Amino acid sequence: MSQNDRPAVTLLGLGAMGRPMARALLGAGHPTTVWNRTPSRADELVAAGAIRADTVADAVTASPLVLACLLNYEVTYELLEPVTEHLAGRTLVNLSTGTPQEARDMAAWAAGRGIDYVDAGMMATPPMIGTEASLFLYSGSDTGFERYRPTLELFGVARHLGADAGRASLYDLALLSSMYAMFAGFLHGAALVSTAGISAADFAEAAGTFVRATSVSLPAAAELIDSGDYTTDVQSVDFNKAALDRIVQVSMDHGIGVDVVAPIKALLDRQVAEGHGAESFDRIVEGIKHPGP
Amino acid sequence: MSQNDRPAVTLLGLGAMGRPMARALLGAGHPTTVWNRTPSRADELVAAGAIRADTVADAVTASPLVLACLLNYEVTYELLEPVTEHLAGRTLVNLSTGTPQEARDMAAWAAGRGIDYVDAGMMATPPMIGTEASLFLYSGSDTGFERYRPTLELFGVARHLGADAGRASLYDLALLSSMYAMFAGFLHGAALVSTAGISAADFAEAAGTFVRATSVSLPAAAELIDSGDYTTDVQSVDFNKAALDRIVQVSMDHGIGVDVVAPIKALLDRQVAEGHGAESFDRIVEGIKHPGP
Ligand SMILES: NC(=O)c1ccc[n+]([C@@H]2O[C@H](COP(=O)([O-])OP(=O)(O)OC[C@H]3O[C@@H](n4cnc5c(N)ncnc54)[C@H](OP(=O)(O)O)[C@@H]3O)[C@@H](O)[C@H]2O)c1
Ligand SMILES: NC(=O)c1ccc[n+]([C@@H]2O[C@H](COP(=O)([O-])OP(=O)(O)OC[C@H]3O[C@@H](n4cnc5c(N)ncnc54)[C@H](OP(=O)(O)O)[C@@H]3O)[C@@H](O)[C@H]2O)c1
Repeated sequence: MSQNDRPAVTLLGLGAMGRPMARALLGAGHPTTVWNRTPSRADELVAAGAIRADTVADAVTASPLVLACLLNYEVTYELLEPVTEHLAGRTLVNLSTGTPQEARDMAAWAAGRGIDYVDAGMMATPPMIGTEASLFLYSGSDTGFERYRPTLELFGVARHLGADAGRASLYDLALLSSMYAMFAGFLHGAALVSTAGISAADFAEAAGTFVRATSVSLPAAAELIDSGDYTTDVQSVDFNKAALDRIVQVSMDHGIGVDVVAPIKALLDRQVAEGHGAESFDRIVEGIKHPGP
Repeated sequence: MSQNDRPAVTLLGLGAMGRPMARALLGAGHPTTVWNRTPSRADELVAAGAIRADTVADAVTASPLVLACLLNYEVTYELLEPVTEHLAGRTLVNLSTGTPQEARDMAAWAAGRGIDYVDAGMMATPPMIGTEASLFLYSGSDTGFERYRPTLELFGVARHLGADAGRASLYDLALLSSMYAMFAGFLHGAALVSTAGISAADFAEAAGTFVRATSVSLPAAAELIDSGDYTTDVQSVDFNKAALDRIVQVSMDHGIGVDVVAPIKALLDRQVAEGHGAESFDRIVEGIKHPGP
């Protein structure tokens, strides 16, 4: 197999995420150079065929593709600023989590130094790396992404979201919002049933099944949102407001907090107040897009 | 097949939920008597073999098992109060949605009139009736539930949660909380990506996949909650607080509301303030169970 099929790859950062990524690269036959602040974390990978770089400069010059999987942007700048002349002409994929603004700033920093920059958001936990359940979002240089796509696909499903380097981070934070709210809703429900002595384990099974079953209607909700036409004959604001009123009241009656559910009721109340009671529940997205005073 | 295997069933209320339930009963060969305020809604079912009752009293006396699938408890009282002497000795399953208190009150009302009472919560939409995705929760009389279990299983998975008639409603509202929060999280994410011109349809597919993938860790969260020991080495309050801080900040930077995400950040902030930053994210359930002042 030619060098081109399995380009040399450098990976900076062998934390919880970096280590399974290095294993995926080695498993696919990529010449893999690794560097980590705490060198011992590379031992197992070196035993499996990785090349240990003693300095960041050595690491960076070893490969045309440099992956940085470090704690955050600050650490990434700190390590790369001294070696930018070596990075010039290479593709840098920054996998650490940050904000869209941090990603755009780093893209500008890279552009000023002749570095081909791709920003990434990893929607995965360490054991998911290399499975189909893992989603890696990319934005920024699309030539860099396309050139190394087969390599990047080793980590999970790979999606490029556009040339604006901030898009992967934005999408990442949006997906995390969905996940956190789902968990918070589960925790509210677990708190509610606990008042009747029902275990969280019992509830988790039912809630998982119910959340997965009802999540299949997200695309139908999206259709209303994208069309801007919230006409419905099933899931009206009024119908769902009655349910949320009941949830909030019963939660208070049982002495638990309404932190998670009261804001959803408030979003529905606002739609009613604005005269949209007969339209779809999903219309509350308009209240999020256009926050009140 | 004996009468005992397919007991006669009466169904009051042929709305969106009642009609597919009647079809499930007829499909399984139950002698099925139906009554609806607007009689024409029974026409199709009568053509399929249902017996039309002209009065509620006639309906109730036709079967040992009476299912009420009406708008709410008020309507159910209104229709049944005049016929309680006919209901005595029969099993009444009330399927309308209400609060635990309404269920307990109706159980007491039924007990005072010699009616065997089962309260129900339907975790389904009309097209789900009769499929495995449909979950029907029951509480109250367990002899009534056990006697008619095979019939009740026609509508979906059937679970009896205990003798306290309020439990089905409590569990129902807890599951709805999980669902509403999941939807609200999706809508927040859709609002966030819309600021970059990304469609809700694009986001819905990714969010559905991500929510389903991450929902598999609900049982692990439940284990911590039930044990009361929130020790973790992966998903600490501090780690997740950093993510929520970022989500809230980026949402504000992009001009969208933080209705859905700010309360989750606040729950994490409270855990940090109380000295639990190194413990698991799931510890925020304690903040919901014990609301602050
Ligand atoms: N873990 C997850 O589930 C997950 C999921 C999605 C995204 N992320 C993001 O992915 C990135 C990496 O996460 P991780 O879980 O792999 O983190 P981690 O296990 O904490 O590893 C952090 C890495 O950064 C290095 N590092 C930290 N401070 C440094 C410094 N001052 N100088 C040089 N190196 C330094 C560490 O080196 P040492 O080994 O020497 O400490 C280590 O290689 C983070 O931005 C994280 O938010 C993580
Ligand atoms: N639809 C769902 O997805 C869903 C899911 C879970 C739980 N639920 C709950 O299940 C129950 C029934 O829901 P549904 O969707 O079937 O409701 P629906 O389609 O609105 O039907 C309501 C039923 O109640 C009857 N009714 C209303 N007011 C009445 C009155 N004053 N006197 C006599 N009958 C009256 C209606 O008769 P007419 O035909 O004469 O109007 C109809 O049979 C509700 O408590 C609802 O919250 C619904």
